[in-house]
Amino acid sequence: MNEKDVKDNNQKEQKDIGITVKKLEDFSEWYQQVITKSEFAENSAVSGCIVYRPELFSIWEKLVRITDKKLKNTGVKNCYFPLLIPERLLKKEATHLEGFSPEVAWVTHAGDTELDERLAIRPTSETIMYDSFARWIRSWRDLPLKTAQWNNVMRWEFKHPAPLLRGREFLWVEGHTVFASSEEAEAERVEIIDIWEDVLDNYLAIPSFTGKKSKKETFAGAEYTISLESVLPNGKAIQGPDFHHDGQIFAKVYDINFLNKKGEREYAYQNTWAITTRMLGVMFGIHGDDKGLIVPPRIASHHAVIVPILFEDSMNAVLAKCTELKVELSKIKYHDEHIIVTVDDRNYNPGYKFNHWELKGVPLRIELGPKDLDKHQVVIVRRDTGEKVFVKFTEVENTIKILLDKVQEELFNRAKKILESSTAKTDNLEEFKKLIDEKKIVFVPFCNNMECEENIKTISGAKSLNAPLDQNMNSETCFACGAPAKAYFYFGKSY
Amino acid sequence: MNEKDVKDNNQKEQKDIGITVKKLEDFSEWYQQVITKSEFAENSAVSGCIVYRPELFSIWEKLVRITDKKLKNTGVKNCYFPLLIPERLLKKEATHLEGFSPEVAWVTHAGDTELDERLAIRPTSETIMYDSFARWIRSWRDLPLKTAQWNNVMRWEFKHPAPLLRGREFLWVEGHTVFASSEEAEAERVEIIDIWEDVLDNYLAIPSFTGKKSKKETFAGAEYTISLESVLPNGKAIQGPDFHHDGQIFAKVYDINFLNKKGEREYAYQNTWAITTRMLGVMFGIHGDDKGLIVPPRIASHHAVIVPILFEDSMNAVLAKCTELKVELSKIKYHDEHIIVTVDDRNYNPGYKFNHWELKGVPLRIELGPKDLDKHQVVIVRRDTGEKVFVKFTEVENTIKILLDKVQEELFNRAKKILESSTAKTDNLEEFKKLIDEKKIVFVPFCNNMECEENIKTISGAKSLNAPLDQNMNSETCFACGAPAKAYFYFGKSY
Repeated sequence: MNEKDVKDNNQKEQKDIGITVKKLEDFSEWYQQVITKSEFAENSAVSGCIVYRPELFSIWEKLVRITDKKLKNTGVKNCYFPLLIPERLLKKEATHLEGFSPEVAWVTHAGDTELDERLAIRPTSETIMYDSFARWIRSWRDLPLKTAQWNNVMRWEFKHPAPLLRGREFLWVEGHTVFASSEEAEAERVEIIDIWEDVLDNYLAIPSFTGKKSKKETFAGAEYTISLESVLPNGKAIQGPDFHHDGQIFAKVYDINFLNKKGEREYAYQNTWAITTRMLGVMFGIHGDDKGLIVPPRIASHHAVIVPILFEDSMNAVLAKCTELKVELSKIKYHDEHIIVTVDDRNYNPGYKFNHWELKGVPLRIELGPKDLDKHQVVIVRRDTGEKVFVKFTEVENTIKILLDKVQEELFNRAKKILESSTAKTDNLEEFKKLIDEKKIVFVPFCNNMECEENIKTISGAKSLNAPLDQNMNSETCFACGAPAKAYFYFGKSY
Repeated sequence: MNEKDVKDNNQKEQKDIGITVKKLEDFSEWYQQVITKSEFAENSAVSGCIVYRPELFSIWEKLVRITDKKLKNTGVKNCYFPLLIPERLLKKEATHLEGFSPEVAWVTHAGDTELDERLAIRPTSETIMYDSFARWIRSWRDLPLKTAQWNNVMRWEFKHPAPLLRGREFLWVEGHTVFASSEEAEAERVEIIDIWEDVLDNYLAIPSFTGKKSKKETFAGAEYTISLESVLPNGKAIQGPDFHHDGQIFAKVYDINFLNKKGEREYAYQNTWAITTRMLGVMFGIHGDDKGLIVPPRIASHHAVIVPILFEDSMNAVLAKCTELKVELSKIKYHDEHIIVTVDDRNYNPGYKFNHWELKGVPLRIELGPKDLDKHQVVIVRRDTGEKVFVKFTEVENTIKILLDKVQEELFNRAKKILESSTAKTDNLEEFKKLIDEKKIVFVPFCNNMECEENIKTISGAKSLNAPLDQNMNSETCFACGAPAKAYFYFGKSY
């Protein structure tokens, strides 16, 4: 490599690397830049479908590993159903079809042959799975049946896409469980919601509020939907993982019945639930700053980067110590997973490397130069606060673990404060409209009537998010129509 | 549960459970029955697309876990590219297009809207990945780029489907790697082929022969293809995992160039490689018998089943010992993974349970009745040979590990002997035709000429499988056309 080459390269990449807008001034543009310039995602030749580059995908792999283990501990088993669903199966449950058909991608030809029947790329797999479940389930002994698929689904949205947050293809786990009684089915809600809250709070560091969706926002074909909702820095709410109790709705349509212990035929009780790649987008949107991404340590696939400060005469000694440090740190376990550390020994200046790793959101940077070597110390810099500490070699392992936990905890606390400060309560429609205009999430007593919700949407642009499961209702009236309120709901503009 | 219910259930399931044909008399029908009656797979509403039921999928998950780790150790990183590929991208490389276009499933509509451009469901991802690679790769510093995707692909075959062996959708890992020189690219061949041979030999217990494909059978767009080929009990060869060296063919079409160390622009060198769910089908086909599946212990997701022999007066003591045994055995590690053991305490007779677990191919059955309890022993039965041993409680752990290794080894050795005995060598066309009619794999000196191979296919129904990398050629002539032979090739009828 010649000098000019290095310089060209530095200039080219340094020009590309910077985020040119402020997060709080133009969130959408900031988000696009941060997610693509970090080399995490790329828009593809198909609008609304992104490329998950290796650094992004390794975080998804970690989320899958963590979540899959928790789900399997509840007795869920993974399976795989076909990508394509015949139109006649998709059409069986009318509400479900109505919910999905405007967004279905249809396969009509194979090679030069026109197919006899159109095939849908799965927008979700109820219709094809339940066709099988009807054959698999014969008696109460076959229940509960707890299955899930980690797969790709396609929903052809026509709204403006944003990588991970809204697109036409996404990755997820779709859980489909079947029980012999409504009680057992509803008991699973607690297990699944616990897992979703655990993953969001303790790994992704995303604060959220859990509650029941309004009638209007209930999943197509479900009796009720529980969702975890979060808020992005642009004030827009975004739905996270969910849980749908389907009661016997699908069972009746797909004829999933079983011989109960009394020897009678009965329709089964079903749930579905999911967490998607969207949550990574929410995580990046919430934690990132004007320098780039910030990845919470417990979901990071890369915990620390060691940047050697190199001068010709001390280069070998410094690099040797960096490698030693990397080897030592790589042996540490942090919450059951090994710490992943790299030494950035590329032929660039340290400032360039600092920017590079800040953009990618690596939680800790370890700097080591000849003066540090003399003093038996390193400099550790937190990605989230920029805080610098000088740490003796003997203390590095311990400090790294403490700092990772601190970063994790403080990212969550900071986001939680922002969430709380962006929430307001009212029972007055005018005040509500004002608060929505100020990009607040608004907590209101609501009648849960479909027409009323549509009217609220028309006049304010906001829709309901969910209603907390624990309610302190007296005899409030709906903030919008004055009818008796059913529950306090969160409302907001949303993705 | 009442008595009649148990009886009905036993009768119904016992009637369903049996395999009604002999493996060696009608392999295709046997295979269909064994794979569906074991509840491993199910044909779906879309012809050629199967349902991977949980017991089958857990074996695939294990193959993924094992293989993914080995691939990551070579520096491969996982990523995810869109499912859909615009027609114009797919059409860029002519040979590649020609190879795949008759089998492409086309998306033409989204909701009610006709798309401006048809989108292909990926039959493989070269065309969409290399479009990105061209942007990602700028200098030799960006190389090697070693990526892989574990995903689903669609190839709309019109031949008769067989679950896992031949279908329209399958799961696989597709590796796509890019290097700065042809030497580095070709060096990867050894690493990848080593992994494929390790997975086939030591986990799936599938004997195979590795070699280079003929010109005619080389992957569409590759310079050469290396394959591992196996043979099913019906005498048909089936291609297993492969490795394609693409040279600069795709790089020139997709403009994947880089600044080399001399400061010159150069096209990159590429490989692709894959292993698919088909291998599970090959494994089931090779090892199963007239009682059902036989799953090799190192890929099994379930190693042993404990069947208590229950009588009213000793029931509690026997069940307690079975549970104790299960807990103890579950702590054992067998080749880095925990042993998975179940107690089958269902209310069925032991004979029914024996059949049930034999059908599912669980490698070891442990029987424990009141007499065994008195003698401080269990009976362990091998699934593959039916061999029974009486083992003292103190020796169970040790014996289980030894037996699992023995089953694994002997399954491979048995299959290897069959493979060897189904292979013959000749340099005479008439003899060749006779051997092919006898369902042999035939080893012949061959000119590697496309027209000659087509002619062989026409007169014998056989095609070339591959040519071993080490050749002992003198001045042999082609067995079919008499021209100078290029190499010894395996030929056979194939899937």
